[in-house]
Amino acid sequence: MLDLGKMRDEIDVIDSEIVRLFEKRMKICENVAQFKIETGKPVFDKSREQDKLKTLGAKAGSDFNRCGVEELFQQIMSISRKRQYQLLQENGIEEPSDFTKIDFINKENVTVVYQGVEGAYSYGAMKTFFGEDVKNYHVATWKDAMEEIKFGRADYAVLPIENSTAGIVQDNYDLLTKYDHVIVGEQIIRCQHVLTALPGATLSDIRTVYSHPQALMQCREFLDAHKEWHQKEWSNTAAAAKKVSEEHDLSQAAISSSYAAEYFGLNILSENIFTNSDNSTRFIIVAKKKVYAKDAHKISVSYELPHESGSLYNSLSHFIYNGLNMTKIESRPILKRNWEYRFFVDFEGNLSDSAVKNALRGLRSEVQNLRVHGNY
Amino acid sequence: MLDLGKMRDEIDVIDSEIVRLFEKRMKICENVAQFKIETGKPVFDKSREQDKLKTLGAKAGSDFNRCGVEELFQQIMSISRKRQYQLLQENGIEEPSDFTKIDFINKENVTVVYQGVEGAYSYGAMKTFFGEDVKNYHVATWKDAMEEIKFGRADYAVLPIENSTAGIVQDNYDLLTKYDHVIVGEQIIRCQHVLTALPGATLSDIRTVYSHPQALMQCREFLDAHKEWHQKEWSNTAAAAKKVSEEHDLSQAAISSSYAAEYFGLNILSENIFTNSDNSTRFIIVAKKKVYAKDAHKISVSYELPHESGSLYNSLSHFIYNGLNMTKIESRPILKRNWEYRFFVDFEGNLSDSAVKNALRGLRSEVQNLRVHGNY
Repeated sequence: MLDLGKMRDEIDVIDSEIVRLFEKRMKICENVAQFKIETGKPVFDKSREQDKLKTLGAKAGSDFNRCGVEELFQQIMSISRKRQYQLLQENGIEEPSDFTKIDFINKENVTVVYQGVEGAYSYGAMKTFFGEDVKNYHVATWKDAMEEIKFGRADYAVLPIENSTAGIVQDNYDLLTKYDHVIVGEQIIRCQHVLTALPGATLSDIRTVYSHPQALMQCREFLDAHKEWHQKEWSNTAAAAKKVSEEHDLSQAAISSSYAAEYFGLNILSENIFTNSDNSTRFIIVAKKKVYAKDAHKISVSYELPHESGSLYNSLSHFIYNGLNMTKIESRPILKRNWEYRFFVDFEGNLSDSAVKNALRGLRSEVQNLRVHGNY
Repeated sequence: MLDLGKMRDEIDVIDSEIVRLFEKRMKICENVAQFKIETGKPVFDKSREQDKLKTLGAKAGSDFNRCGVEELFQQIMSISRKRQYQLLQENGIEEPSDFTKIDFINKENVTVVYQGVEGAYSYGAMKTFFGEDVKNYHVATWKDAMEEIKFGRADYAVLPIENSTAGIVQDNYDLLTKYDHVIVGEQIIRCQHVLTALPGATLSDIRTVYSHPQALMQCREFLDAHKEWHQKEWSNTAAAAKKVSEEHDLSQAAISSSYAAEYFGLNILSENIFTNSDNSTRFIIVAKKKVYAKDAHKISVSYELPHESGSLYNSLSHFIYNGLNMTKIESRPILKRNWEYRFFVDFEGNLSDSAVKNALRGLRSEVQNLRVHGNY
């Protein structure tokens, strides 16, 4: 019978020895970094590392162990690079960046464009992010909003990027790729419908409720308690609020956002009438100038990958080995290249952090067309 | 002056020693696996591994090295687990599977349901996969199609899952999660529009062209050469073909698929009129019975992940370590759990392969709610 305790003791001895060797190796790597700083040699030499991985893999006694050894040393070398980049950083040697660090995102005297109509959720996101008094206007499509900031007619655009139940807004991922704009902020807006009517109207006055079919459905439980009301479908929730405000009929109500109620001067008769209270939409704030705030803590990047086994996994190792927490990964097809993808990754950090610089340095040398979409 | 060559030699010595210790450790781990096989103990003991990581990290001489040591041993223990899963498999300890292997997917005397109308691309996908004479009918929504097979009124449903330019069909990913059906096949259909008109009509007879706005736009180059034609927007391309076939007017043409032209008895006047010839749609064939063909070579799975740093990366390592090529990864929000995701991964293999069994065993014990959506 095998003795589990004894086997575990043996493993403990080996592990302590590996720790000792790892630390000794790191010490030498710091000297290598010193040498590279003095001579101006680059930290990452891909072909040298590949050769080294092959040599070490060949020492292993089985296919499985060869794969394991290669994976292990990929990580050890990645940790070493990370330490060397830190030392480069400490010695003031930086890669050029086209982003400028600023103290904060300016929200004073700016013009903001959004898609949709007054009182829509995108309007609410804009007001919440920039404040009540922000100068703003709206356009018909998301692409139009991108064009407005491209030509300098607006400083910022507000675009929905993801909904907690419906998923990503695929078109806006594509627009991020198409335009060279950057994300400078995000705003999550809970989708909370209210029942709204003219000032003076009470629940007992209501005969007809207008809203978008989806909103009517989402408030079904509430409406089931008022079966005497006629339900009328309308093109969108903000338009329903507008209709009620314009027709001066106390028997009409709309289901809309509280932003729409406020914009159209209506009273809120019932709050919390939406069954799924977890529904929320994340909006991004997009600008033309490549800036990031010094306290920004989330970074969005995208890149293309060769169609090779393991390429996605290897690319993600740059985040992991630099201790960066990925919060999201998405893929979008690359136009005119059938079934090839561009990957979008969100992770936590600031472009000034050396771990982030290390990860981006590594990615840039190992993936195709890396884009930094913003730090916010 | 530091000597780079000497430092590299020192590193080489250390690395050889680490390889030796790693292999020695793997050998002991194989004995541990043997013990676990004999005693029926589970391979993965998360709290024990966490304790061990802390103990080893505490041995390191700096914060940086502590982090490095913890990362390194996370990796080493993950490699060990994968070897242990392999040994379980080699010892004939199989996990039960609810899938049945069959010789081939039966296409004879079956009933197929699809969403849309006769002549649509989904209709074309169905005919291409099942053959011209298949018994079929259509329903209004994708969900309806899933219900039809749930209640046994159809044997298979045909659903679009991805378009090479527009991306994934998010709703159908959600339906795969909601229903316990399995994917038994896929069919890629190139989106190729044709100009079609009544038998007897020639290009010089045409005065008006009907189609969906998107199709008219996609064929803009072709239409620019016929500026004398009126372009009329129609609800969909198949409906446009139907209209032309019913009105018996030789001056009318439609832009539609060749499937629609054929179904409505029209002639094709011009082929290859679509500018972006790379546009194609991938359809999946869904069934209720959990079966897979012995030569099936692609597997679709999905799973949920805890919101922890590195969890996605660690989950993907199960494919990499077993030499399985991932072809796709997607994420979808989990309903009622704000900003948590279910990941969908496609990879190459057959459910009978031991590499596949190892990967699924590892995933099942380390992720949440693993689902195998099919092998086809």
